[in-house]
Order: sequence, then C-alpha cells, then structure tokens
Amino acid sequence: MEKLSELIEQRDLKGIRQWLVDTGSLEIAEALTRVEPEQRALTFRLIPKDRSLDVFEMLDVPYQQEILSTLRDSNVRDILENMEPDDRAKLLDEMPPALAKQLLEGLSFKERRLTSMLLGYPENSAGRIMSPEFVELHGEMFIKDAMEKVRTSGRGVEAIYSFPITDDKGRLSGTIDLGDLVMADPLQKVGDLLTEEKYSVTTDQDQVEASRFLLETGFAALPVLDSDNHLVGVLTFDDAMEVLRESDTEDILRTGASEPLNAPYLSASLFMLARTRAVWLLVLALAATLTVNVLNIFQVTLQSVIKLSLFIPLLIGIGGNIGSQSATIIIRAMALGEVYFSDLLKVLVREIRVGFLLGLILGALSLPVVGPFFGWDMAVVLGSSLLSIATLAAFAGSVLPMFAKRIGIDPAVVSAPIISTLVDASGLIIYFLIAKAILNI
Amino acid sequence: MEKLSELIEQRDLKGIRQWLVDTGSLEIAEALTRVEPEQRALTFRLIPKDRSLDVFEMLDVPYQQEILSTLRDSNVRDILENMEPDDRAKLLDEMPPALAKQLLEGLSFKERRLTSMLLGYPENSAGRIMSPEFVELHGEMFIKDAMEKVRTSGRGVEAIYSFPITDDKGRLSGTIDLGDLVMADPLQKVGDLLTEEKYSVTTDQDQVEASRFLLETGFAALPVLDSDNHLVGVLTFDDAMEVLRESDTEDILRTGASEPLNAPYLSASLFMLARTRAVWLLVLALAATLTVNVLNIFQVTLQSVIKLSLFIPLLIGIGGNIGSQSATIIIRAMALGEVYFSDLLKVLVREIRVGFLLGLILGALSLPVVGPFFGWDMAVVLGSSLLSIATLAAFAGSVLPMFAKRIGIDPAVVSAPIISTLVDASGLIIYFLIAKAILNI
Repeated sequence: MEKLSELIEQRDLKGIRQWLVDTGSLEIAEALTRVEPEQRALTFRLIPKDRSLDVFEMLDVPYQQEILSTLRDSNVRDILENMEPDDRAKLLDEMPPALAKQLLEGLSFKERRLTSMLLGYPENSAGRIMSPEFVELHGEMFIKDAMEKVRTSGRGVEAIYSFPITDDKGRLSGTIDLGDLVMADPLQKVGDLLTEEKYSVTTDQDQVEASRFLLETGFAALPVLDSDNHLVGVLTFDDAMEVLRESDTEDILRTGASEPLNAPYLSASLFMLARTRAVWLLVLALAATLTVNVLNIFQVTLQSVIKLSLFIPLLIGIGGNIGSQSATIIIRAMALGEVYFSDLLKVLVREIRVGFLLGLILGALSLPVVGPFFGWDMAVVLGSSLLSIATLAAFAGSVLPMFAKRIGIDPAVVSAPIISTLVDASGLIIYFLIAKAILNI
Repeated sequence: MEKLSELIEQRDLKGIRQWLVDTGSLEIAEALTRVEPEQRALTFRLIPKDRSLDVFEMLDVPYQQEILSTLRDSNVRDILENMEPDDRAKLLDEMPPALAKQLLEGLSFKERRLTSMLLGYPENSAGRIMSPEFVELHGEMFIKDAMEKVRTSGRGVEAIYSFPITDDKGRLSGTIDLGDLVMADPLQKVGDLLTEEKYSVTTDQDQVEASRFLLETGFAALPVLDSDNHLVGVLTFDDAMEVLRESDTEDILRTGASEPLNAPYLSASLFMLARTRAVWLLVLALAATLTVNVLNIFQVTLQSVIKLSLFIPLLIGIGGNIGSQSATIIIRAMALGEVYFSDLLKVLVREIRVGFLLGLILGALSLPVVGPFFGWDMAVVLGSSLLSIATLAAFAGSVLPMFAKRIGIDPAVVSAPIISTLVDASGLIIYFLIAKAILNI
C-alpha cells in the first residue's frame, strides 16, 4: 500500500500508471487516502476511465469532495451522473448548498429527480439512504417471468438482492430474496413463496432504527414506504451496515467525551479535531466548577483534617468509573434494542444492586489498606463513602441516559463523561458529610 | 410485543397458540426475550414445528442455551441438526465442553464434520465464522450451467449471494456475486465476468479484520482459504456484520470501563453484571492509589496553601477528559482502518498540538474566572497547569493505545478509564511543582 507513495516520491509517472492498472480499486482507494492532497488529485486523474468511478465510490465523502474540487466540470458531471443515487445524495448533502444546487442541475433529469427526492426526506431518516431504483415484482407473476423482469430491468440497480412484492392493488404484500427466486420452480407463482412475514420501514423512520430492523429480519433489503404507504424505495444491507457503523462510532466517541469527526482522522484539520472536543471540554469544565464550590464550602473541614484531601481523587475517580460503567452498559443495551424505557424500573433495581455490591467490595477492601496508615476512623469514612458513592453512581449512570433517550436526546450525550463529572460533585458532598459525622469535626 | 406477556398472564393457552401462528418469527423471538425464563421455555414449545427453528436461530446464544436445556433430547437433536454450521459452532462453543461434545455426537456425520472443522480453528479467527458449505464455480463454465449448479446444489446453503471461482487447477481465481450471474448472458463463460480483483481471507485471520475487509470490498461474501491456500469456506456479509457489531460493543463498553457481557442486558445475572465491572474497578482503584501517594508527598504544600486542594478534582477531571478524547478517537480510527502504527509520528504531532491548543483555551479562560476570587498567582498556577496537563494527556492518550495494539493488546483495554487514571497522578505532580515554583512555598 506504501508502493504508491514511493512511486510518487520517485516522480515515476509511468510506474504510477502501471500500478493503477495492476492494482484493485480497493487498494487504490486505500492508497489514495494515505498520500498528500495534491498527489491524491493528481493520481486520481491517472486512473483508467473504466475504474475511476469504482475507486471514487470507495472513498469517504471528504476525499470525494476534495477530488471533485480539482476535476474539470465535465469529469465532475460524469462521476456524479453515474454514482448510486443514495451515495450521490450523501455527497451533495455535505457540500455548500450553492455548489450542491449547481451540481444537481448538471445531472440528467432522471438522476436529478432521484437525488432531489432523497434529499427531500428529513436528515437521518431512512428515506435519505434508501435506493429509489428497485425491481418491483407482483405476486401473480410466474417465477420465470419475475426472473426475466429482474434480468431486463435490474441492470445497474443497486438493490438487486431483495425485491418488494406487491399485490394486484399495488399494495406491498412482502419481500423476496434473489436467492429464493433463483432456487424456486420457474412455473411457481411469486406469491407462493411469500411467508406470512411482511416487513417494511418508512421514509421518515430513524436511519439507525430502520437499519437495525433490517439486520434483525435477515433480509438483504427491505421495502421503504412513504407516509401514504406508497412503495418508494428499498433499504439495502450495505447501506444499513454503513449507518450502524457510523452510529457506533458516534456512541464510542461520545463515551470518550468527543463529537464525531465526520472525516477520516488523518484527513481532518487540526481545527476540526479541536472543535469536536472543545465543546465537550467547556461543558465538562463548567460542570467541574461544582466540585470547586463544594470543596470551598467544606474548606474548614478540609483544613482541620488535611488527610481527607488525600483520598479525593481516588474517591471521585472510582465513583466516576462506576457511573461510566452503568451509563455505557445501558446506552449500548438501548442501542442494540435489548432495553426500552418501559424497562426503567427493572434496570434501576439491577443497577442499584450492582452498584451497592461493587461499593461493598471496594469499601471492604479499603478498610485493611487504609486503616493501618491513616487511622481506622479514616478507613471507615472512606469505606462508607465508597459504598454510598458507588450506589449513587450506578443509579445516576443508568437513569439519566434512559430519560435522555425518552425525551429524544442521544443518550450517548449524557454518557460516561457527564455522569462522572456530576458524580464527582455529589460524591464529595457525601464524603464530607460522612467525615464530619464520623470524625465529628 | 407486550401481547405475549399479557396472554401468558391470562394463562390463555389457546390465545398464545393463535398468536404464535399469526406472528412473524422475528416478533416472536423479540417477545420471547421479554418474558420470564419458565414462560420462555413453555412458549417456545408451543411454536408451530415449521417455525420453531426460524425463531430459535434469531435468539441470542444465552437464550438458545436456556431453551435447549428445557427440551427433550430428540427436539434438541432436531434443532442442532438443522442449524447453520457456523451458528451451531457458535452455540456449542459457549457450552460446557462435556455437554458440547455429547451434543456434537448426536449430529449426523456430515453436520458433525462441518461443525468440528469450524471449532478446530482458533478463537476469534475467520475460520470460526465462515460457512463451510458453499457453491464453487469454475471459470470455464457457461453462465447457464453455473446457474444450474447454483439451483441444484445451492439449496439450504447459507452463502448463496457470492460464489468463489476456481480455475482448472482448482486455484481460486476470483469471486462472483449472484446478481452478476443472473444479469449475465447465459452463453458467456463465468471466467469472462471476473474482474482483476481477487479478494479472499484466511481461516486464521482475525474475525474483525476479515469482516472489515469484506465490507470494504463490497462483495456479499468472500472466499476463505486455509494455510495451504485451499478453499475451505466463505465468509458471508451477515456473519461479518454480526462480528463487527460485537467488536463495536466491546470497544464501547471498554471505553466505559467495563468488559463485554456476552449476553443481552436483561438476561445477564447480577453476578455476571458485577463481574464484568469489578475487574476493571479493582485495576483502576489500584492505579488511583498513586494519587493518594502523590498527595501524601505534597501534603505540606497542601497544608500551607489549602486553596490548592479546591482545584484538584477540576484539574484532574479535565486532564482525564482530554486523555479520554485522544484515546477514544485514536482507537476508533484504528478500528476503522484509518490509522496504522506506521502513522504514530503523524498522530503524535497532531494530538500534542490539539492538546496544547485545548489547554491554551482552557487556561486562558480560567484566568479571569479564578483570579478575582482566589488571587492572580493562584490563577496563573491553575492556567499553566491546565496547559501542561492538557498537552500531556493528549500525548499519553494517543501513544498508549497505539503501542498496546502494536504488542497485540486490544487498545480499548488501555482506553479512556486507564488513561485518565494515569493522567490523574501525573497531573497532580505537575500541578504541585508549578504551585511550589510560582507561589514559592
């Protein structure tokens, strides 16, 4: 993969041309992401015409935009004209509106219609990622005729592995996979192959929900219905897959206190990198000022028993970790459709018990470790603080994300970082109150 | 979906039977996961024979095990015999070896052979999740004959959307998707449809790597070669998808300081929940004792300037957050194949610059906020500490995961929680050294 970089360094134009002929589109796309922008644009123009679209479609949107900006208008038009409608919509969607509009107008009527239709659906809706071109079969068709229709009208259609079946009134009556079609007796009717299961998603359904549903059904694609129950497209497996991975990335980054980059790491500018993180940091810093106030209030206590301060980082660290655990586990369970808001009580009981159990273990362990060195009263203060903070953390960590999702906020936004910061402040209060009581300061 | 629970409460056996007939396998599987174990087993036995396998295969392994344990041996044998080899291997793999062996012996020779073969490959290897049953085509075949072979020998084969092509010497010469086969002219030769791209994975390749590669190629399945380059199976899209989601779950949970549950949240026992978290907590608690020692060393400084303690949680909180950000972003970039170890230097430079930038912003903001209330010297101490800690955190957060992966440890293990705990201790040292210098204590 570093071959290209070498050839470029050696300015070996002939070598590059040869390499682009011998190498698979995927390797080329990979290699392109690993060279400097100028070289990328230059190399892309050297790719044999019949492969360049292939390679282009394998690149992430930021690279696609970058390359388009260096091509002649005619080439730009060629590429856009031949992209899959949903990929094209995704690309245009992330461009400056004026430019997107201009490019859209450069398309043929058919392609423009398809793309505008997709862009017409709300952001993050299934309608945005569906394939508006598909082969529709009828229950009354014979298998052999269905196969014939697939052959004649299926060329160049992305959604070729699953077909929506409609009845004589044009209503969706099911879905059939290409595999079953191939296996079936040519003289059977399509309708005979339908199971009683009739799955579909709607254009304004959330992308992630719809994609997860497709995966669960095990079909290669699902019909997409608009608000009037008209069949307007199909959601294909690979697009669903991409959506799920992106939402996983989002969850992972937010659990790590950062916003998604929406670009490959190495192609993101320093400014982008900082911006996706600064927002979170400022919010967290603000929340953290709570701890300053709490400590300020208990300054006298702290002054009189300085050793209390020694355990502050340990205590809030552990509290934060337990809160993060609960939040992360619940958020993932919700993302995988294992837990719904209706399970709130069940979840709460479990998490509180787990938190209590963990607090008990840690508290018990702390006694013999802390006692001999800092006094047994101090050990008791620490142990009981651990127990109460652990329980509180598990409670907060599970309930907050569930309510967030309930009111339509991505639960990952109130995940690990926020939870632990909130637990920090409340944990300190608990710690000092217990200390005052036991050490009667 | 709550319909089943109601019917069960009403002890309406007739109603349940009817519901099981009217409802799709997927809904049944979903509903089963939401009732008590006894009801689950009971309800499962009421599912019409022709559907029960369907439903069974849609359940997660823990539920499958639970249900099997309640069925008569003959039914257990039926179910296992008819499962996909890879699904069966996955199920047996998580059973007590003795029981697994016994069940394995209950299988027909063919199915037993396939399953043992899969189980023979190393854990987390592509060999474990491949489909050992597939239709192999030859480059010299005419399309119509290829289609015929697919029809005759493809029945019941999971991997029906992509076929490995071998040449006359039996060597893999490429892959062809069912869609292209259907579209092609029946009198063309299979070999004519092959592109110069020849993708495959190997049996002992890491599951996650192999799955990501399949996704990138855009094929519905890829051939799997063993160490002698023999074609022994195909890796299908849906299995790859499952692997990737599981590894994403793993990354998310580890970023949140917990080990994967390997079971749906609600079906996990309290003990399992606690265990997956306790390990992490003990490690983190141990690491956190560092902070106690650090503070102990600087106790005098702390005593003389008590207000220093007020900012400890805030300072280490922010440091931890910046470290988590870097770690999470880099780990995800590696998981998506955007960043390799060879990029270490590039990454380091970027992260250190980002960390410095963020520290600068936070430090600058802290001055006017802290100065008026706690004195300007204190403000300078805090500001410069923020700057240095932010830079250090970004450095540690990016370099540690990359080295972890390099030496074969899942980078997610040294992600957010560990990083922030380590940054805590070192951050405190920096803080106090700066304080001693500026406040000349």
